[in-house]
Amino acid sequence: MGASEGHRRPEQLGSEVLAEDEADAYTGAGRPTIRVGLLGCGNVGAALARFLLTDSKRIADRTGVQLELAKVAVRSATKERDVPGVEPLLTTDPVSVVSDPSIDVVAEVMGGISPTRDLVLRALGSGKPVVTANKELLANHGGELWDAASAAGVDLLFEASVAGGIPLIRALRESLAGERIHRVMGIVNGTTNYILTRMAASGASYQEALTEAQSLGYAERDPTADVEGFDAAAKAAILANVAFGAKVVAGDVYREGISGLNVQDFEAARRLGFAIRLLAVVEAGPGGTLGVRVHPAMVPQDHPLASVRDSFNAVFVEGDAVGQLMLVGRGAGGLPTASAVLGDLVDAAHNLTVKGVARKLELHPVVLSPIDDLRCAYYLSLFVADRPGVLSAISGVLGRHNVSVRSMEQDAPEPEAGLAATPGRGPGDEREAGQAHLVFVTHPAYERDMQACLHEIRRLDAVRRIGGLVRVVGTLAPQPPGGA
Amino acid sequence: MGASEGHRRPEQLGSEVLAEDEADAYTGAGRPTIRVGLLGCGNVGAALARFLLTDSKRIADRTGVQLELAKVAVRSATKERDVPGVEPLLTTDPVSVVSDPSIDVVAEVMGGISPTRDLVLRALGSGKPVVTANKELLANHGGELWDAASAAGVDLLFEASVAGGIPLIRALRESLAGERIHRVMGIVNGTTNYILTRMAASGASYQEALTEAQSLGYAERDPTADVEGFDAAAKAAILANVAFGAKVVAGDVYREGISGLNVQDFEAARRLGFAIRLLAVVEAGPGGTLGVRVHPAMVPQDHPLASVRDSFNAVFVEGDAVGQLMLVGRGAGGLPTASAVLGDLVDAAHNLTVKGVARKLELHPVVLSPIDDLRCAYYLSLFVADRPGVLSAISGVLGRHNVSVRSMEQDAPEPEAGLAATPGRGPGDEREAGQAHLVFVTHPAYERDMQACLHEIRRLDAVRRIGGLVRVVGTLAPQPPGGA
Repeated sequence: MGASEGHRRPEQLGSEVLAEDEADAYTGAGRPTIRVGLLGCGNVGAALARFLLTDSKRIADRTGVQLELAKVAVRSATKERDVPGVEPLLTTDPVSVVSDPSIDVVAEVMGGISPTRDLVLRALGSGKPVVTANKELLANHGGELWDAASAAGVDLLFEASVAGGIPLIRALRESLAGERIHRVMGIVNGTTNYILTRMAASGASYQEALTEAQSLGYAERDPTADVEGFDAAAKAAILANVAFGAKVVAGDVYREGISGLNVQDFEAARRLGFAIRLLAVVEAGPGGTLGVRVHPAMVPQDHPLASVRDSFNAVFVEGDAVGQLMLVGRGAGGLPTASAVLGDLVDAAHNLTVKGVARKLELHPVVLSPIDDLRCAYYLSLFVADRPGVLSAISGVLGRHNVSVRSMEQDAPEPEAGLAATPGRGPGDEREAGQAHLVFVTHPAYERDMQACLHEIRRLDAVRRIGGLVRVVGTLAPQPPGGA
Repeated sequence: MGASEGHRRPEQLGSEVLAEDEADAYTGAGRPTIRVGLLGCGNVGAALARFLLTDSKRIADRTGVQLELAKVAVRSATKERDVPGVEPLLTTDPVSVVSDPSIDVVAEVMGGISPTRDLVLRALGSGKPVVTANKELLANHGGELWDAASAAGVDLLFEASVAGGIPLIRALRESLAGERIHRVMGIVNGTTNYILTRMAASGASYQEALTEAQSLGYAERDPTADVEGFDAAAKAAILANVAFGAKVVAGDVYREGISGLNVQDFEAARRLGFAIRLLAVVEAGPGGTLGVRVHPAMVPQDHPLASVRDSFNAVFVEGDAVGQLMLVGRGAGGLPTASAVLGDLVDAAHNLTVKGVARKLELHPVVLSPIDDLRCAYYLSLFVADRPGVLSAISGVLGRHNVSVRSMEQDAPEPEAGLAATPGRGPGDEREAGQAHLVFVTHPAYERDMQACLHEIRRLDAVRRIGGLVRVVGTLAPQPPGGA
């Protein structure tokens, strides 16, 4: 590429790319070389750098796009990296990457908001398409970034930001562009899905499963962002942007994590035919409202999302015409994420060379549906004194608030005092002597009514503790007739 | 759109679209209207026409693309159609659609090869992008069509041709553009998946399940194309085109159908922990060869493809970086297929308005791996005389051909003469008195060795009949470490 200075608008850049005549800028059938600036060389960045340094001929043969890794911004230029050939490209000055006029496209995999936000804005402002895997940045500052991309007429692509290697964003933006989408439900955090799968399979307590996930590198030392649902909430906001064109940021998302789930919840789920999953849900509500929430959910065992285990991610889409659709794959990890970034890079490079412009992401303000308005079935777990009249009191509360009970069961006999370590009683078992454990599953009810019930139930003398309230995801809709 | 005459090259067309100044050609923020010509108004065409006639404002708001249904070619102009407003657009002359200079893009959902092939070539030749759902046409004449699209510099899009509403083609062509794909395995025929699911769930015979599928409209009166794997073979060829850039046509695909499966196979599969699925497999082989085949397969119950039931479709992709990926959804039916066509129409229209050109599909000749070279585990079912020495004779044959047995079992006691109708013996039960039913599962072996075994086993005196030989799909690879 030539070294024209300053801001370059895409039209100008495109012409330049096509007019470029230096021998080394071409390969094979006159393909222009697209120079990539990389911000960050951690897990994802190193995998991406390896692709670009070792595989670019194969990629060019397959896609017609010749990518060349030009510069890599890192924090430490002396750290050893398992990326042969990357050393001469390293710089500790990321601004020199986004402002280098010889760089055509920027891939941002450094994460975080500062200084990343400024770097991405600077790259877009100087007419460079940006590919990013940064859900935190998009979920908090997406509007500003998409506006900047739109003003510059360049691509801002982010396939890797939600569900890593799963080609979800492109499916929602392009393949389903004409579709009236009702609901998107995703398992978008592999750490929590691993913990939930382990708790269900082995009867481990939350703390044991978390420790195991940490020892395997699936969970960070401070797991808050994952287990309390912050990571999933950021992704839910991006799903709301893409699937519904809704102006939603991470802070708008109703959020509950998984740390309150206990062994009894998993035992009850198994008996009742449910799997417990942490779901990011974006759902069209009445009157054009939109519900956006993250919380654990009881998912019927025959629902496709129940079969998504370990650290896999999945996104389940329900639309008017397309019906039910699910995409499953690796949600994180260096290689799958780098694969998604690479797909976006090829797209951005293609658009540069043919002077096409990616579709803008147009976001519209939306009225968020408050969690109180949610209507679904509920799983309710209560630890109560083991004496007559308790069930009647609780049932009375539920009935007064229009909550109809679908099923009720009482756990196997509670452990007796002094026998806490008897076989069959795991370390996460929270039952105490003299207690009974009641599990209710309700018919669909309003969240506000359930919360009113909880408020009253908590004050009943016989109720020792509320074990948990978990929303139930509806069973699969009946299959439409016709078609094979 | 203006009415310029004759061939229009895309550049010319694009400028024209943008320069267009008639008031009715625009909506909202200066969006050009893209006029769609539809070939065919059957199940898919009618659903698509309804979208375009009733939903185009919503589609324009969401995508920035204003689509207008301009003409619809049908066989009978008098047939009653449940598409309000379509009558004035109907014509029985499809040539008038593809040659109309006021039509910008053609959607082909009439199916078949003649006269469809000529119509599509004519549309492409006059500079109109074409969107098609026609797997038969693509799998037999794809090379010619892609060349024509490439020469004209226009889009030929075909998301709906494989697995209906599942956004698979775009995922393979774009999201996974940089990915080194090892294998694609698809459940791409809903009719056979419905029959296989019913046989497994109810113990129905093949004939009973087929009749049920026919009565529900899932199977055609002549089910050959579905049950003998011809439909899946056409889709396998397209998958080979898209995932591997391989010049493969339907006739290149090794093909076996499901009509030879019997009740005992399903009983054995259940005991052994398998589901039976008809798979279209495209797999990179040694030395750059490619295996492309369609056949029933024993799929381990914990494999994601085993959970794909009824008429759902799914495609399982394995790649170097992305790992394992599965897309599940509705493979057929008017609405899901129309949804996919619509997504392509939006894409083609977008490319017209920004003067972008979709990536070409470049196909390279490939050496096909003969079925004899396949290496996998096998399920082998034999009906033999119930007498000593039989097992030893069969084991001897297997051993001489380097086929190692992983497990062997003999079915529950065979029915006695005259008791054919005893409870527990379904109508598809093919056991006869005095017979034993042996089921072998082998360790991985070469197909040529298995076929040599069958040749010898068939000639053993004690062997009454070979029940079936079904290839076993390997279990899931162990999960890679790291990542969440």
